[in-house]
Amino acid sequence: MDNGFSPRRMDLPKALDMSHHLSTLSTSRRPSPLKSLIRYMGDSSIRSLAGGLPNSKFFPFETLSSLTLDPAIYAPSGVPVPKPKSWIATLFDKGLQFIETPKYASNPRELQLSTALQYGGGGGSAELIAFLKEWTLMVIPPSYSDFDIILNCGSTDGFHKIVELLCEKGDGILCEAYTYPSALETGWPMGVRPVPVAMDDFGMIPEALEELLAGWDDVKEGRRRPRVMYTITIGQNPTGTVLPDDRRRAIYKLASKYDIIIVEDDPYFALNFGTYGVDAPGSEEENDPKASEQKRNEVFINALGRSYLKEDHEGRVIRIDTFSKTIAPGCRLGWTTSNALFTERLLRASETSTQQPSGPTQVLVINLIVKTWGMGGWLRWLRGLRGEYGRRRDWMISSLIKGLDVEVRPSQLAYNVFSSTSAPAPRLIAYAKPTASSLADEQWNEKVSVYNSSSKGKGKKIVSFLPPTAGMFVWIDVHLDAHPSLNGRSDVASESYKEDANEVMHRLFVALAEAKVLVAPGWMFVGDGLMAGAPKEEDMASTSSSSGLQSDASVGHFRLAFATLDEKPMKETIAAFCVVVKEFFA
Amino acid sequence: MDNGFSPRRMDLPKALDMSHHLSTLSTSRRPSPLKSLIRYMGDSSIRSLAGGLPNSKFFPFETLSSLTLDPAIYAPSGVPVPKPKSWIATLFDKGLQFIETPKYASNPRELQLSTALQYGGGGGSAELIAFLKEWTLMVIPPSYSDFDIILNCGSTDGFHKIVELLCEKGDGILCEAYTYPSALETGWPMGVRPVPVAMDDFGMIPEALEELLAGWDDVKEGRRRPRVMYTITIGQNPTGTVLPDDRRRAIYKLASKYDIIIVEDDPYFALNFGTYGVDAPGSEEENDPKASEQKRNEVFINALGRSYLKEDHEGRVIRIDTFSKTIAPGCRLGWTTSNALFTERLLRASETSTQQPSGPTQVLVINLIVKTWGMGGWLRWLRGLRGEYGRRRDWMISSLIKGLDVEVRPSQLAYNVFSSTSAPAPRLIAYAKPTASSLADEQWNEKVSVYNSSSKGKGKKIVSFLPPTAGMFVWIDVHLDAHPSLNGRSDVASESYKEDANEVMHRLFVALAEAKVLVAPGWMFVGDGLMAGAPKEEDMASTSSSSGLQSDASVGHFRLAFATLDEKPMKETIAAFCVVVKEFFA
Repeated sequence: MDNGFSPRRMDLPKALDMSHHLSTLSTSRRPSPLKSLIRYMGDSSIRSLAGGLPNSKFFPFETLSSLTLDPAIYAPSGVPVPKPKSWIATLFDKGLQFIETPKYASNPRELQLSTALQYGGGGGSAELIAFLKEWTLMVIPPSYSDFDIILNCGSTDGFHKIVELLCEKGDGILCEAYTYPSALETGWPMGVRPVPVAMDDFGMIPEALEELLAGWDDVKEGRRRPRVMYTITIGQNPTGTVLPDDRRRAIYKLASKYDIIIVEDDPYFALNFGTYGVDAPGSEEENDPKASEQKRNEVFINALGRSYLKEDHEGRVIRIDTFSKTIAPGCRLGWTTSNALFTERLLRASETSTQQPSGPTQVLVINLIVKTWGMGGWLRWLRGLRGEYGRRRDWMISSLIKGLDVEVRPSQLAYNVFSSTSAPAPRLIAYAKPTASSLADEQWNEKVSVYNSSSKGKGKKIVSFLPPTAGMFVWIDVHLDAHPSLNGRSDVASESYKEDANEVMHRLFVALAEAKVLVAPGWMFVGDGLMAGAPKEEDMASTSSSSGLQSDASVGHFRLAFATLDEKPMKETIAAFCVVVKEFFA
Repeated sequence: MDNGFSPRRMDLPKALDMSHHLSTLSTSRRPSPLKSLIRYMGDSSIRSLAGGLPNSKFFPFETLSSLTLDPAIYAPSGVPVPKPKSWIATLFDKGLQFIETPKYASNPRELQLSTALQYGGGGGSAELIAFLKEWTLMVIPPSYSDFDIILNCGSTDGFHKIVELLCEKGDGILCEAYTYPSALETGWPMGVRPVPVAMDDFGMIPEALEELLAGWDDVKEGRRRPRVMYTITIGQNPTGTVLPDDRRRAIYKLASKYDIIIVEDDPYFALNFGTYGVDAPGSEEENDPKASEQKRNEVFINALGRSYLKEDHEGRVIRIDTFSKTIAPGCRLGWTTSNALFTERLLRASETSTQQPSGPTQVLVINLIVKTWGMGGWLRWLRGLRGEYGRRRDWMISSLIKGLDVEVRPSQLAYNVFSSTSAPAPRLIAYAKPTASSLADEQWNEKVSVYNSSSKGKGKKIVSFLPPTAGMFVWIDVHLDAHPSLNGRSDVASESYKEDANEVMHRLFVALAEAKVLVAPGWMFVGDGLMAGAPKEEDMASTSSSSGLQSDASVGHFRLAFATLDEKPMKETIAAFCVVVKEFFA
């Protein structure tokens, strides 16, 4: 299945035998008898009466085409962006490309609708898989030789199949204390429960993971020690954290020691902006007219966050990638990378559920990124996306700093998420009732504004956050003990405090919604269902108790997404957000 | 959710409460917390920081377009077809239509890529669902008022979710003795086993079903009495049978009596040709220049086979439809019609697995059939498909009759599948070594050739088949006792006979493949794993023993698909098939 573009290093070890991880369900899967006939049909001299295929002549689409954006349409990170033009004008500037796929290509081995819209193998297009293998070998690459790739119908579908692949009823899945809730919901009806692991501003804490695993008591917990971990390590959803390399190595070692399969969901890998207020990685090359596109692409690849797959010399990592954030979510197209045994079992699961991903989607994506853009164009497109989303990250953070009168110390600009995690990450903090008046507008047009805190008399800390270095989200800690109704109470650990705290968070959510600002409440992302703000009707109580978390009822959370708004509405919306928050704590 | 086109008859009863049929898995599903936020986002005055949506501006597709066939491009059934032209010439004759969907429509409520390629509700496009509800009310309609529709990613995905909706581990699913194997494979790994019901040339036999249900012994069978039936009633796969209306009523009554949910998979509803050798239903109107298109569509609709949904006044039928045979399989798009409770649970299942079906697919299908063709164009398109596939049915049958020197009695042309099922269906029979020489070519250009059997000395019966009235398949019985190696043996019920019979079928399959004719062997479709030809490594043995079948080891089966070949290759391929079969039995 190797594509020949980027040779695999065959001196690398092969994956270990992971067959003991397969669930009863997955072990019981059999190949579809009908699919076995498709093999014969490759012989063009055979006249087949065997298949159940409809006649491709009668597919009503003679062509499938699209006007597509130029891959270089968006400015990369660190490049001075010209004054915004209208969307239409931008298109005229850059021109559009017309891509078209015919029903019958002159060479029937080429991309054609008569094949791509017909029944096919459950794994998806061999051409796209070859491209994705080349990509994997280029940007990751895994530390074992015999990995394989299968397409899926988006990450949710991919993860759903992985849960069925690995989990028995009643199993636990390790995850970050705050995580993507749809992932938890996938296992829930199968009786699979999240086992949250404590995290901080750097993501999952290896020491907390080891404590949890080493001290696991099957009887006390009512389930066997978890053998699967679900994790998002780059721009984590919802906390925006990026796992440093030393933690990644430490956690992989633990996974190896305790025989855990790591499922790495990495939708934001390309949106890796670097530290807020510091030139984005690669800016130097982007601004150097003498740098080649190849050089710029190389620098971009080297600046990407790492994958667990890179640590993986045993074949215990399953990586889920998606086109949802780089092309469009409606494509419902992604891919799963793992050892060949798991890939084969996932193929069996596809054959009796989704079969292959949508043909029109595959045709569009293959024509665009494999045939039209090529690997160089694809990388240029991702650099542009990183630029666009990175600028939005900057607009949101600078607007929060301004609107909340946040003090920024110069040392915070030297913060690097990949540096040692022994020191706490430098959070930005907003205080109630600062004495300094709001700063003039002009100051906030800069990337970041630094001023001396000594001029300000501080009230209580009301919110704090770490500017994210990747992803789409800012995770706001709301310090509820600053609120008049909770201020000074000493019963923080009590049920009544928790209820009152939830009530305060809910009031703040409603106050924001009334000001037409909708945020995502933190309880939506809670791995163990114990955090502030969760409505009582959400029964998330029966999760594992072994979270290792110090749940702090005095801290609530909001997730703010910076992906969709343009500069002006972003600044207005965050300004409105800040006004409501400050008034709420006044 | 009603669309207002075809008012529902609100005097019809509502569905009964079927909640006791839900599986533990399905009952345990919870709505995704994130999806609950999508509701708020409908308020255009809200500035949302809540969603995890990427920015639709960065979707690389500015338009999605296609050159599509005219819905009237193919001649309906019964219309004299002009001498075949080249495919290109046909296109020039009929012209092509250009359909296009923009990223941003002038009215944002119109179909646009920025919405359709974004995350959405798991049920699929409301516009397409409204169209399909109108269709359902027009061509079926159900006998209860509050049915609902959800899109799925093709029938396999639809059925997979239904098995999870209704079945517990170890349950049995009633099915035809021969059926679509991927359906059986879907339940297999969950421990769900097929419980085949005897069938004949008219499909499932109600009396056999009642005997099986009435006499069910949980302890003896090792499972509770089945509560779910999987059935294909129009052009059944693989047998091509069409269930007569009296059987449909009788089986629905049994389902009601024994509280069974009927899952009706109906991919071939439009390919309902009528009796071979008799003018197709609607031919009179198609050839009447004074008949209006509306009249022709009405006649077409009235000639379609019935659905269990039409019998359904209790809400115990789940119908699976697909665009695989009417648009293209690669769309992976279909829809599930059932009571509203089941639909809601299927929506929950979609949210944590496939999410919505592919956006590009939905855009193409909506633009084509809802916006461009409309209901009238859609019906005209289906009439053309019925014509094309019906002509292929005729070519295959006439070639079989010719190649096998089959005798056709005039009474067989009066055969009507919807008439009484008390008499056996009139099978066409081929005998070994007929004394009459092969007939002249010209005779076989007619729709059917009838001649007197008295002129022929008959050998042993070698194959027999019923010309199908719907679907894509001819199901051939191979009478193995005519073969020299089995002829005259009296141990038909023994294991050694079965093994020898399997061996003979396998040799015939290989002889055909060596002559470059690939057919689908019958063992692929066996509900109970006991039929001739199945290789030993296919462990299909542990199915239920209560099949009520008289398994006859002396009869093997082949499924021949007539969907894909044009006239000349069809005639050549079937001629080659017949030569091999006759020589095999010589």
